[in-house]
Amino acid sequence: MKKKGLLFIVSAPSGTGKTTLCRAMTRIFPDLNFSISYTTRPRRPGDKNGRDYHFISPEDFQKMVAGGEFIEWAEIYGHRYGTSRADLESIRDEGRDVILDIDVQGARQLRDKNLPGIFIFLLPPSWKELKRRLSNRRTEGKAAMEDRLKKAQGEMAEARWYDYVIVNDKLEMARERLKAIILAEHCRRERMMQAMENLIVQK
Amino acid sequence: MKKKGLLFIVSAPSGTGKTTLCRAMTRIFPDLNFSISYTTRPRRPGDKNGRDYHFISPEDFQKMVAGGEFIEWAEIYGHRYGTSRADLESIRDEGRDVILDIDVQGARQLRDKNLPGIFIFLLPPSWKELKRRLSNRRTEGKAAMEDRLKKAQGEMAEARWYDYVIVNDKLEMARERLKAIILAEHCRRERMMQAMENLIVQK
Repeated sequence: MKKKGLLFIVSAPSGTGKTTLCRAMTRIFPDLNFSISYTTRPRRPGDKNGRDYHFISPEDFQKMVAGGEFIEWAEIYGHRYGTSRADLESIRDEGRDVILDIDVQGARQLRDKNLPGIFIFLLPPSWKELKRRLSNRRTEGKAAMEDRLKKAQGEMAEARWYDYVIVNDKLEMARERLKAIILAEHCRRERMMQAMENLIVQK
Repeated sequence: MKKKGLLFIVSAPSGTGKTTLCRAMTRIFPDLNFSISYTTRPRRPGDKNGRDYHFISPEDFQKMVAGGEFIEWAEIYGHRYGTSRADLESIRDEGRDVILDIDVQGARQLRDKNLPGIFIFLLPPSWKELKRRLSNRRTEGKAAMEDRLKKAQGEMAEARWYDYVIVNDKLEMARERLKAIILAEHCRRERMMQAMENLIVQK
Protein backbone atom coordinates (compact mmCIF):
# COMPACT_ATOMS: atom_id res chain seq x y z
CA MET A 1 0.00 0.00 0.00
CA LYS A 2 1.26 3.45 -0.87
CA LYS A 3 1.90 5.93 1.91
CA LYS A 4 -0.86 8.53 1.86
CA GLY A 5 0.12 12.00 0.69
CA LEU A 6 0.15 14.97 3.05
CA LEU A 7 -2.45 17.71 3.12
CA PHE A 8 -1.33 21.33 3.40
CA ILE A 9 -4.00 23.92 4.12
CA VAL A 10 -3.12 27.54 3.45
CA SER A 11 -5.30 30.42 4.59
CA ALA A 12 -4.81 34.15 4.47
CA PRO A 13 -6.82 37.33 4.24
CA SER A 14 -7.41 38.48 0.64
CA GLY A 15 -4.50 40.44 -0.72
CA THR A 16 -1.87 38.33 1.00
CA GLY A 17 -0.94 36.53 -2.20
CA LYS A 18 -1.77 33.01 -1.11
CA THR A 19 -2.83 31.62 -4.48
CA THR A 20 0.40 32.78 -6.12
CA LEU A 21 2.43 31.17 -3.37
CA CYS A 22 0.54 27.89 -3.41
CA ARG A 23 0.86 27.60 -7.16
CA ALA A 24 4.58 28.31 -6.91
CA MET A 25 4.91 25.31 -4.58
CA THR A 26 3.45 22.92 -7.13
CA ARG A 27 6.23 23.93 -9.50
CA ILE A 28 8.89 23.27 -6.85
CA PHE A 29 7.44 19.94 -5.67
CA PRO A 30 6.34 17.74 -8.57
CA ASP A 31 4.38 15.50 -6.19
CA LEU A 32 2.36 18.37 -4.77
CA ASN A 33 -1.03 19.02 -6.29
CA PHE A 34 -3.05 22.19 -6.11
CA SER A 35 -6.62 21.34 -5.28
CA ILE A 36 -9.11 23.08 -7.56
CA SER A 37 -12.22 24.25 -5.71
CA TYR A 38 -15.78 24.24 -6.98
CA THR A 39 -17.51 27.60 -7.01
CA THR A 40 -20.73 29.33 -7.92
CA ARG A 41 -18.92 32.62 -8.44
CA PRO A 42 -19.20 33.88 -12.02
CA ARG A 43 -16.09 33.68 -14.12
CA ARG A 44 -13.97 36.82 -14.33
CA PRO A 45 -11.98 37.70 -17.43
CA GLY A 46 -8.96 35.40 -17.52
CA ASP A 47 -10.51 32.73 -15.31
CA LYS A 48 -10.19 29.28 -16.76
CA ASN A 49 -12.58 26.50 -15.86
CA GLY A 50 -10.75 23.53 -14.33
CA ARG A 51 -7.61 25.57 -13.73
CA ASP A 52 -8.74 28.41 -11.46
CA TYR A 53 -11.95 26.80 -10.30
CA HIS A 54 -14.54 24.33 -11.36
CA PHE A 55 -17.29 26.81 -12.18
CA ILE A 56 -20.69 25.30 -11.49
CA SER A 57 -24.26 26.52 -11.09
CA PRO A 58 -25.82 27.16 -7.67
CA GLU A 59 -28.13 24.20 -8.35
CA ASP A 60 -25.26 21.81 -9.02
CA PHE A 61 -23.40 23.14 -5.99
CA GLN A 62 -26.46 22.49 -3.83
CA LYS A 63 -26.67 18.93 -5.17
CA MET A 64 -23.04 18.32 -4.21
CA VAL A 65 -23.70 19.72 -0.73
CA ALA A 66 -26.74 17.45 -0.33
CA GLY A 67 -24.73 14.46 -1.54
CA GLY A 68 -22.01 15.11 1.06
CA GLU A 69 -19.46 15.55 -1.71
CA PHE A 70 -17.67 18.50 -0.07
CA ILE A 71 -15.16 17.97 2.66
CA GLU A 72 -15.57 21.67 3.38
CA TRP A 73 -17.54 24.48 1.84
CA ALA A 74 -18.25 28.08 2.67
CA GLU A 75 -20.17 31.06 1.39
CA ILE A 76 -18.01 34.13 0.84
CA TYR A 77 -19.44 37.42 -0.40
CA GLY A 78 -22.56 35.67 -1.65
CA HIS A 79 -20.74 32.94 -3.60
CA ARG A 80 -20.09 29.40 -2.56
CA TYR A 81 -16.76 27.59 -2.64
CA GLY A 82 -16.17 23.93 -1.85
CA THR A 83 -13.55 21.19 -1.90
CA SER A 84 -14.47 17.80 -3.28
CA ARG A 85 -13.67 14.97 -0.91
CA ALA A 86 -13.21 12.53 -3.79
CA ASP A 87 -10.73 14.83 -5.60
CA LEU A 88 -8.67 15.22 -2.45
CA GLU A 89 -8.63 11.58 -1.43
CA SER A 90 -7.83 10.21 -4.86
CA ILE A 91 -4.68 12.37 -5.00
CA ARG A 92 -3.59 11.49 -1.48
CA ASP A 93 -4.24 7.79 -2.01
CA GLU A 94 -1.72 7.87 -4.84
CA GLY A 95 0.85 9.10 -2.33
CA ARG A 96 0.86 12.62 -3.68
CA ASP A 97 0.48 15.70 -1.49
CA VAL A 98 -2.30 18.24 -1.78
CA ILE A 99 -2.15 21.95 -1.15
CA LEU A 100 -5.46 23.61 -0.42
CA ASP A 101 -5.87 27.33 -0.64
CA ILE A 102 -8.95 27.97 1.49
CA ASP A 103 -10.49 30.57 3.70
CA VAL A 104 -10.59 30.27 7.48
CA GLN A 105 -14.20 29.06 7.53
CA GLY A 106 -13.27 26.09 5.34
CA ALA A 107 -10.06 25.43 7.26
CA ARG A 108 -11.97 25.36 10.53
CA GLN A 109 -14.29 22.69 9.10
CA LEU A 110 -11.28 20.53 8.20
CA ARG A 111 -9.75 21.00 11.64
CA ASP A 112 -13.06 20.12 13.32
CA LYS A 113 -13.15 16.90 11.31
CA ASN A 114 -9.73 16.07 12.81
CA LEU A 115 -8.26 15.81 9.36
CA PRO A 116 -4.51 15.28 9.75
CA GLY A 117 -3.69 18.40 7.78
CA ILE A 118 -0.89 20.89 8.23
CA PHE A 119 -2.45 24.30 8.75
CA ILE A 120 -0.52 27.32 7.52
CA PHE A 121 -1.57 30.94 7.86
CA LEU A 122 -0.12 33.73 5.74
CA LEU A 123 -0.05 37.11 7.42
CA PRO A 124 0.45 40.42 5.69
CA PRO A 125 3.49 42.25 7.10
CA SER A 126 1.33 45.06 8.49
CA TRP A 127 -2.14 46.41 8.52
CA LYS A 128 -1.02 49.34 6.39
CA GLU A 129 0.45 47.02 3.77
CA LEU A 130 -2.72 44.94 3.62
CA LYS A 131 -4.72 48.13 2.98
CA ARG A 132 -2.32 49.14 0.27
CA ARG A 133 -2.53 45.77 -1.45
CA LEU A 134 -6.30 45.70 -1.32
CA SER A 135 -6.63 49.21 -2.71
CA ASN A 136 -4.46 48.20 -5.66
CA ARG A 137 -7.21 45.84 -6.73
CA ARG A 138 -8.87 48.07 -9.26
CA THR A 139 -11.78 45.70 -9.68
CA GLU A 140 -13.45 46.71 -6.44
CA GLY A 141 -14.91 49.84 -4.93
CA LYS A 142 -14.12 51.47 -1.61
CA ALA A 143 -17.03 49.81 0.22
CA ALA A 144 -15.92 46.35 -0.90
CA MET A 145 -12.42 47.12 0.30
CA GLU A 146 -13.64 48.25 3.71
CA ASP A 147 -15.61 45.08 3.90
CA ARG A 148 -12.56 42.97 3.08
CA LEU A 149 -10.46 44.77 5.67
CA LYS A 150 -13.04 44.13 8.35
CA LYS A 151 -13.19 40.50 7.36
CA ALA A 152 -9.38 40.28 7.36
CA GLN A 153 -9.26 41.42 10.96
CA GLY A 154 -11.56 38.61 12.02
CA GLU A 155 -9.62 36.11 9.95
CA MET A 156 -6.25 37.08 11.34
CA ALA A 157 -7.47 36.39 14.85
CA GLU A 158 -7.94 32.78 13.71
CA ALA A 159 -4.25 32.45 12.88
CA ARG A 160 -3.86 31.53 16.56
CA TRP A 161 -4.86 27.92 16.02
CA TYR A 162 -2.87 27.27 12.82
CA ASP A 163 0.27 25.11 12.98
CA TYR A 164 2.46 27.61 11.16
CA VAL A 165 2.38 31.31 10.48
CA ILE A 166 4.28 32.94 7.64
CA VAL A 167 4.63 36.69 7.41
CA ASN A 168 4.47 37.56 3.74
CA ASP A 169 6.77 40.57 3.81
CA LYS A 170 8.93 39.67 0.87
CA LEU A 171 7.53 37.21 -1.63
CA GLU A 172 10.88 35.48 -1.99
CA MET A 173 11.17 34.87 1.76
CA ALA A 174 7.55 33.74 2.11
CA ARG A 175 8.16 31.26 -0.69
CA GLU A 176 11.28 29.94 1.04
CA ARG A 177 9.36 29.52 4.28
CA LEU A 178 6.41 27.71 2.74
CA LYS A 179 8.81 25.43 0.89
CA ALA A 180 10.67 24.77 4.15
CA ILE A 181 7.46 23.80 5.93
CA ILE A 182 6.55 21.31 3.21
CA LEU A 183 10.03 19.78 3.22
CA ALA A 184 10.27 19.71 7.03
CA GLU A 185 6.87 18.07 7.40
CA HIS A 186 8.13 15.22 5.26
CA CYS A 187 10.95 14.71 7.77
CA ARG A 188 8.67 14.47 10.80
CA ARG A 189 9.27 11.32 12.72
CA GLU A 190 5.83 9.78 12.26
CA ARG A 191 6.18 10.04 8.48
CA MET A 192 9.65 8.53 8.52
CA MET A 193 8.71 5.54 10.64
CA GLN A 194 8.75 3.09 7.77
CA ALA A 195 12.19 4.15 6.54
CA MET A 196 13.50 3.88 10.07
CA GLU A 197 12.08 0.46 10.78
CA ASN A 198 13.50 -0.83 7.52
CA LEU A 199 16.93 0.42 8.43
CA ILE A 200 16.88 -0.78 12.02
CA VAL A 201 15.91 -4.33 11.10
CA GLN A 202 18.00 -4.34 7.93
CA LYS A 203 21.07 -5.68 9.58
CA MET B 1 12.93 41.32 26.58
CA LYS B 2 14.43 39.47 23.66
CA LYS B 3 12.73 36.34 22.39
CA LYS B 4 14.80 33.34 23.42
CA GLY B 5 16.63 31.55 20.61
CA LEU B 6 15.70 28.03 19.57
CA LEU B 7 17.68 24.93 20.40
CA PHE B 8 18.29 22.33 17.69
CA ILE B 9 19.69 18.99 18.78
CA VAL B 10 21.18 16.78 16.09
CA SER B 11 22.14 13.17 16.71
CA ALA B 12 23.37 10.46 14.40
CA PRO B 13 25.51 7.35 14.45
CA SER B 14 29.19 8.04 13.68
CA GLY B 15 29.84 8.22 9.99
CA THR B 16 26.60 9.95 9.16
CA GLY B 17 28.26 13.29 8.68
CA LYS B 18 26.43 15.24 11.34
CA THR B 19 29.19 17.66 12.28
CA THR B 20 29.70 18.72 8.67
CA LEU B 21 25.97 19.31 8.29
CA CYS B 22 25.60 21.25 11.52
CA ARG B 23 28.53 23.49 10.68
CA ALA B 24 27.07 24.11 7.24
CA MET B 25 23.91 25.42 8.92
CA THR B 26 25.79 28.08 10.84
CA ARG B 27 27.04 29.45 7.53
CA ILE B 28 23.48 29.58 6.16
CA PHE B 29 21.89 31.09 9.26
CA PRO B 30 23.98 33.91 10.73
CA ASP B 31 21.95 33.78 13.97
CA LEU B 32 22.61 30.10 14.49
CA ASN B 33 25.50 29.14 16.74
CA PHE B 34 27.27 25.85 16.89
CA SER B 35 27.70 24.84 20.49
CA ILE B 36 31.25 23.75 21.28
CA SER B 37 31.36 20.78 23.66
CA TYR B 38 33.86 20.17 26.42
CA THR B 39 35.77 16.93 26.16
CA THR B 40 38.46 14.87 27.84
CA ARG B 41 39.34 13.19 24.55
CA PRO B 42 42.93 13.91 23.46
CA ARG B 43 43.37 16.25 20.54
CA ARG B 44 43.79 14.63 17.14
CA PRO B 45 45.91 16.22 14.43
CA GLY B 46 43.94 19.13 13.01
CA ASP B 47 41.75 19.56 16.09
CA LYS B 48 41.61 23.13 17.28
CA ASN B 49 40.85 23.99 20.87
CA GLY B 50 37.77 26.23 21.12
CA ARG B 51 36.71 25.45 17.58
CA ASP B 52 36.27 21.67 17.52
CA TYR B 53 36.01 21.19 21.28
CA HIS B 54 37.08 22.76 24.49
CA PHE B 55 39.77 20.23 25.38
CA ILE B 56 40.03 19.87 29.15
CA SER B 57 41.57 17.45 31.62
CA PRO B 58 39.56 14.64 33.27
CA GLU B 59 39.98 16.49 36.56
CA ASP B 60 38.55 19.74 35.21
CA PHE B 61 35.72 17.83 33.58
CA GLN B 62 34.91 16.18 36.87
CA LYS B 63 34.85 19.56 38.59
CA MET B 64 32.36 20.84 36.04
CA VAL B 65 30.18 17.74 36.55
CA ALA B 66 30.29 18.25 40.32
CA GLY B 67 29.40 21.91 39.92
CA GLY B 68 26.35 21.08 37.79
CA GLU B 69 27.80 23.04 34.90
CA PHE B 70 26.76 20.55 32.22
CA ILE B 71 23.25 20.47 30.88
CA GLU B 72 24.16 17.03 29.51
CA TRP B 73 27.24 14.92 29.47
CA ALA B 74 28.12 11.39 28.41
CA GLU B 75 31.03 9.01 28.28
CA ILE B 76 31.71 7.66 24.80
CA TYR B 77 34.52 5.18 24.11
CA GLY B 78 36.20 6.09 27.37
CA HIS B 79 36.14 9.86 26.85
CA ARG B 80 33.73 12.35 28.29
CA TYR B 81 31.80 15.00 26.38
CA GLY B 82 29.60 17.67 27.88
CA THR B 83 27.59 20.79 27.02
CA SER B 84 27.92 23.83 29.25
CA ARG B 85 24.59 25.14 30.45
CA ALA B 86 25.96 28.70 30.73
CA ASP B 87 27.31 28.68 27.14
CA LEU B 88 23.97 27.50 25.83
CA GLU B 89 21.80 29.86 27.80
CA SER B 90 23.87 32.96 27.16
CA ILE B 91 23.49 32.44 23.40
CA ARG B 92 19.77 31.73 23.61
CA ASP B 93 19.16 34.70 25.90
CA GLU B 94 20.55 36.95 23.20
CA GLY B 95 17.84 35.62 20.90
CA ARG B 96 20.25 33.54 18.85
CA ASP B 97 19.66 29.87 18.06
CA VAL B 98 21.93 27.04 19.06
CA ILE B 99 22.67 23.85 17.18
CA LEU B 100 23.99 21.01 19.30
CA ASP B 101 25.66 18.02 17.74
CA ILE B 102 25.34 15.37 20.42
CA ASP B 103 25.02 11.67 20.83
CA VAL B 104 21.75 9.94 21.80
CA GLN B 105 22.74 9.60 25.46
CA GLY B 106 23.16 13.36 25.74
CA ALA B 107 20.01 14.04 23.73
CA ARG B 108 18.01 11.79 26.01
CA GLN B 109 19.17 13.79 29.02
CA LEU B 110 17.95 17.01 27.41
CA ARG B 111 14.62 15.46 26.53
CA ASP B 112 14.22 14.11 30.07
CA LYS B 113 14.78 17.64 31.39
CA ASN B 114 11.87 18.74 29.20
CA LEU B 115 14.09 21.20 27.44
CA PRO B 116 12.06 22.76 24.62
CA GLY B 117 14.49 21.59 22.00
CA ILE B 118 13.88 20.40 18.47
CA PHE B 119 15.30 16.89 18.17
CA ILE B 120 16.62 15.81 14.78
CA PHE B 121 18.07 12.42 13.93
CA LEU B 122 20.26 11.81 10.90
CA LEU B 123 20.02 8.33 9.48
CA PRO B 124 22.45 6.76 7.05
CA PRO B 125 20.68 5.68 3.86
CA SER B 126 21.37 2.02 4.54
CA TRP B 127 23.27 -0.31 6.78
CA LYS B 128 25.63 -1.14 3.97
CA GLU B 129 26.43 2.51 3.37
CA LEU B 130 27.10 3.12 7.07
CA LYS B 131 29.57 0.22 7.02
CA ARG B 132 31.26 1.63 3.97
CA ARG B 133 31.57 5.09 5.51
CA LEU B 134 32.98 3.75 8.74
CA SER B 135 35.53 1.55 6.99
CA ASN B 136 36.77 4.60 5.11
CA ARG B 137 37.93 6.02 8.40
CA ARG B 138 41.51 4.94 8.20
CA THR B 139 42.21 5.98 11.77
CA GLU B 140 40.53 2.95 13.29
CA GLY B 141 40.97 -0.81 13.27
CA LYS B 142 38.42 -3.47 12.42
CA ALA B 143 37.45 -4.10 16.03
CA ALA B 144 36.74 -0.42 16.62
CA MET B 145 34.59 -0.38 13.52
CA GLU B 146 32.58 -3.42 14.62
CA ASP B 147 32.10 -1.69 17.93
CA ARG B 148 30.81 1.47 16.25
CA LEU B 149 28.44 -0.52 14.07
CA LYS B 150 26.97 -2.28 17.07
CA LYS B 151 26.58 1.02 18.83
CA ALA B 152 24.97 2.54 15.72
CA GLN B 153 22.29 -0.14 15.74
CA GLY B 154 21.31 0.73 19.30
CA GLU B 155 21.38 4.44 18.52
CA MET B 156 19.21 4.16 15.45
CA ALA B 157 16.49 2.52 17.49
CA GLU B 158 16.36 5.76 19.48
CA ALA B 159 15.44 7.73 16.38
CA ARG B 160 11.86 6.76 17.23
CA TRP B 161 11.42 9.53 19.77
CA TYR B 162 13.08 12.34 17.82
CA ASP B 163 10.91 15.07 16.28
CA TYR B 164 12.46 14.81 12.84
CA VAL B 165 14.38 12.20 10.92
CA ILE B 166 16.59 13.03 7.95
CA VAL B 167 17.98 10.33 5.73
CA ASN B 168 21.46 11.43 4.71
CA ASP B 169 21.53 9.83 1.30
CA LYS B 170 22.83 12.79 -0.65
CA LEU B 171 24.61 15.48 1.31
CA GLU B 172 22.95 18.20 -0.74
CA MET B 173 19.46 16.89 0.05
CA ALA B 174 20.23 16.34 3.74
CA ARG B 175 21.45 19.92 3.93
CA GLU B 176 18.27 21.19 2.29
CA ARG B 177 16.16 19.21 4.74
CA LEU B 178 17.99 20.37 7.84
CA LYS B 179 17.78 23.94 6.60
CA ALA B 180 14.04 23.49 5.99
CA ILE B 181 13.49 22.21 9.53
CA ILE B 182 15.25 25.23 11.02
CA LEU B 183 13.30 27.65 8.86
CA ALA B 184 9.98 25.88 9.42
CA GLU B 185 10.44 25.76 13.18
CA HIS B 186 10.71 29.54 13.14
CA CYS B 187 7.29 29.68 11.51
CA ARG B 188 5.58 27.53 14.13
CA ARG B 189 2.59 29.27 15.58
CA GLU B 190 3.84 29.45 19.15
CA ARG B 191 6.95 31.29 18.00
CA MET B 192 4.97 33.70 15.85
CA MET B 193 2.50 34.63 18.56
CA GLN B 194 4.04 38.02 19.24
CA ALA B 195 4.08 39.01 15.57
CA MET B 196 0.48 37.94 15.28
CA GLU B 197 -0.76 39.77 18.34
CA ASN B 198 0.95 42.94 17.15
CA LEU B 199 -0.74 42.71 13.81
CA ILE B 200 -4.17 41.83 15.13
CA VAL B 201 -4.29 44.75 17.53
CA GLN B 202 -2.44 47.10 15.18
CA LYS B 203 -5.55 48.44 13.58
